Amino acid sequence: MSEIIATYLLHDKKEDLVKKAESIALGLTVGSWTNLPLLEQKQLQKHKGRVVEVSALPEDEKANAYFGEKRIKGIVKIAYPSANFSSDIPAILTTIFGKLSLDGEIKLIDIELSEELKAQFPGPQFGISGIREKLGVFHRPLLMSIFKGVIGKDLGDLDQQMRAQALGGVDIVKDDEILFENEKTPFEKRLVSGLQTLREVYEETGHRTLYAVNLTGRTYELRDKARRAVELGATSLLFNVFAYGLDVLQALSEDPEISVPIMAHPAFSGAITPSSFYGVSNKVLLGKLLRLAGADYVLFPSPYGSVALDKAETLSIAEALTKEDTQLNKAFPVPSAGIHPGLTELLINDFGNDSIINAGGGIHGHPDGAVAGGKAFRDAIDGVLNGKSLDETAETSDPLQKALNLWGRPEVKA
Amino acid sequence: MSEIIATYLLHDKKEDLVKKAESIALGLTVGSWTNLPLLEQKQLQKHKGRVVEVSALPEDEKANAYFGEKRIKGIVKIAYPSANFSSDIPAILTTIFGKLSLDGEIKLIDIELSEELKAQFPGPQFGISGIREKLGVFHRPLLMSIFKGVIGKDLGDLDQQMRAQALGGVDIVKDDEILFENEKTPFEKRLVSGLQTLREVYEETGHRTLYAVNLTGRTYELRDKARRAVELGATSLLFNVFAYGLDVLQALSEDPEISVPIMAHPAFSGAITPSSFYGVSNKVLLGKLLRLAGADYVLFPSPYGSVALDKAETLSIAEALTKEDTQLNKAFPVPSAGIHPGLTELLINDFGNDSIINAGGGIHGHPDGAVAGGKAFRDAIDGVLNGKSLDETAETSDPLQKALNLWGRPEVKA
Ligand SMILES: [Mg+2]
Ligand SMILES: [Mg+2]
Repeated sequence: MSEIIATYLLHDKKEDLVKKAESIALGLTVGSWTNLPLLEQKQLQKHKGRVVEVSALPEDEKANAYFGEKRIKGIVKIAYPSANFSSDIPAILTTIFGKLSLDGEIKLIDIELSEELKAQFPGPQFGISGIREKLGVFHRPLLMSIFKGVIGKDLGDLDQQMRAQALGGVDIVKDDEILFENEKTPFEKRLVSGLQTLREVYEETGHRTLYAVNLTGRTYELRDKARRAVELGATSLLFNVFAYGLDVLQALSEDPEISVPIMAHPAFSGAITPSSFYGVSNKVLLGKLLRLAGADYVLFPSPYGSVALDKAETLSIAEALTKEDTQLNKAFPVPSAGIHPGLTELLINDFGNDSIINAGGGIHGHPDGAVAGGKAFRDAIDGVLNGKSLDETAETSDPLQKALNLWGRPEVKA
Repeated sequence: MSEIIATYLLHDKKEDLVKKAESIALGLTVGSWTNLPLLEQKQLQKHKGRVVEVSALPEDEKANAYFGEKRIKGIVKIAYPSANFSSDIPAILTTIFGKLSLDGEIKLIDIELSEELKAQFPGPQFGISGIREKLGVFHRPLLMSIFKGVIGKDLGDLDQQMRAQALGGVDIVKDDEILFENEKTPFEKRLVSGLQTLREVYEETGHRTLYAVNLTGRTYELRDKARRAVELGATSLLFNVFAYGLDVLQALSEDPEISVPIMAHPAFSGAITPSSFYGVSNKVLLGKLLRLAGADYVLFPSPYGSVALDKAETLSIAEALTKEDTQLNKAFPVPSAGIHPGLTELLINDFGNDSIINAGGGIHGHPDGAVAGGKAFRDAIDGVLNGKSLDETAETSDPLQKALNLWGRPEVKA
């Protein structure tokens, strides 16, 4: 039967998790059951929610202390028949975590879609292999960089930054996610000018760089704006999906005229993911749902920067994005925030070859500027792939040496 | 200067909240400041974020115990110039709580928009006075009811429920938010059939009832679907705004062809609001932002039902929806979930005349059926407005007496 199975973590006030699970399975589907006439039970059978699993977890002293009372901690899995909802993310979210999200200490920690249901979703249109093909880079992690300090700046300033980033060997340049429509660097002009700069660098050096321009504005204007961007030659789009909605991302991804990879930014996702008691896990929100909706690359805080996530959380996102799937392309994990060249080995150890190393200050803040900043990363990546330590690589890379001198490097345990 | 001031509650790891506030004000606007050349400072002055307030709060033992270390608790207010973002909710959310939402224990607890910025938003198109005019009911709280157990049911079943609810004197009937496009009760047929039933009841009794039909499906189809609904005579729409996005609600509300009140359902909002450490307060999310985006009525858990919110939280939502504002119409607060007639006095005491009493089981579960269920509520409301206790009113209202016998009533303190 086509269905979605949702897994919840509960810190419940009541004693009986099995009863709670049953009330969820019925309450969010057919409403009631045991009092129904047999004929009605027969008619409603295919709509009835099903308790798949109820497991008690050990008592959580910290949680009990925090709530000032004993809480029953446990995992509950409920299957919701696809017959109950239309095959779109808003209907799924409303079914599995609509009213239920308001029902005490409950967190949505996993979802599993039947193959039939999954087939209704596009998944990444380009994904890892499509992006690699666009760049012609197949055997190393990609390098991404972010414009810095762009609010109030003009096109000349952005072009200068763009040129330096591309000359440094960066594969993808992304807009700052807080750059919106503005007089000095309006969307279309910024795009055209950035693409021109990248074309010049390509002609000079043969190095190709994608530009993820920030797609912003009113929801119902986004599709036309994105189509226009593609007409103008756009090579990628950046999208603050959680400030809009997952279904909007899906619509952009599915649109045949918006034929470029879409980068999902985690802005606002921190309002939903971090609590142990409430919300939605990173694995589901940044991993499974973004892949389902068609994100080609997904940014999230790395375990190492100033804004950091637990390593297990980051790995759960990356796994959800890259796990083999018969239907969905893989999306690139992009661990971000506070990344400098000294973290390269750690990042590749954690996220593997099929990941993107993404830096802002770690490129622009290089003592010799952003070109050297990019080179430091590229040398570091090549060194790691050749089995060399960063210090070894730095012996023949002045940019990397200077980066390590400035930012240091954490010890990497074998 | 046009700006938005955001207020955050922090449980910070670092000692220095002032420094933290400054790093937010700069980091989310111009990036850096003190090292900039004077000329550049002058150019960027109008884009620079401003620390409005930093206040320390008393140490929070429970929070410290939970995190296993001392946390600095405090309130930080930052002003972000409107020059930095386009006047839409996604741009505002990304600016004030995009990356910042991921930065440790931080919760967005208030927003204040300058009048100039607020003028960019529609607010409720009907709101309290517009809905009252549609119904011709000006001097009492309205009564709303919800279909029950509708998944897998056919139009006949829904019509029967609709008729009983309207005959009971209900002012607004809402769809169940988990009813999506389906074969047995598809959107257009359900709407037309429901409206027909309500027209019949009006002809029989002179009582008018609005029907908030659930607007669901893919984002880019919603506007046309809503316009079509209005063409077919729709009198209201129900919308799971947090499964889509606030900007979608705004677009629906602004659309001149979608000329009916829109009801915002809180589904999924519990993934964002309940934590003390993370997310967005109910006051901001269900109150200020929904009013700004144009919700005409807003459902939220009452302080009394099975799924309940703290009373102070519910009052903060209601206040944000109904506070006098020179630019925005007021929206109806709809405290919901587990409401029965015995709660009528409490609800009116808390939320006043300009609120909606909303029940599902508390109407359909009446011993004499949904017609009596509606009457019990209407009698209770009239009694309270006439200064009578529920018990007094029940002396001359058999439906209310039976409701009180079944569900009881909490003691109301004067
Ligand atoms: Mg940024
Ligand atoms: Mg419901």
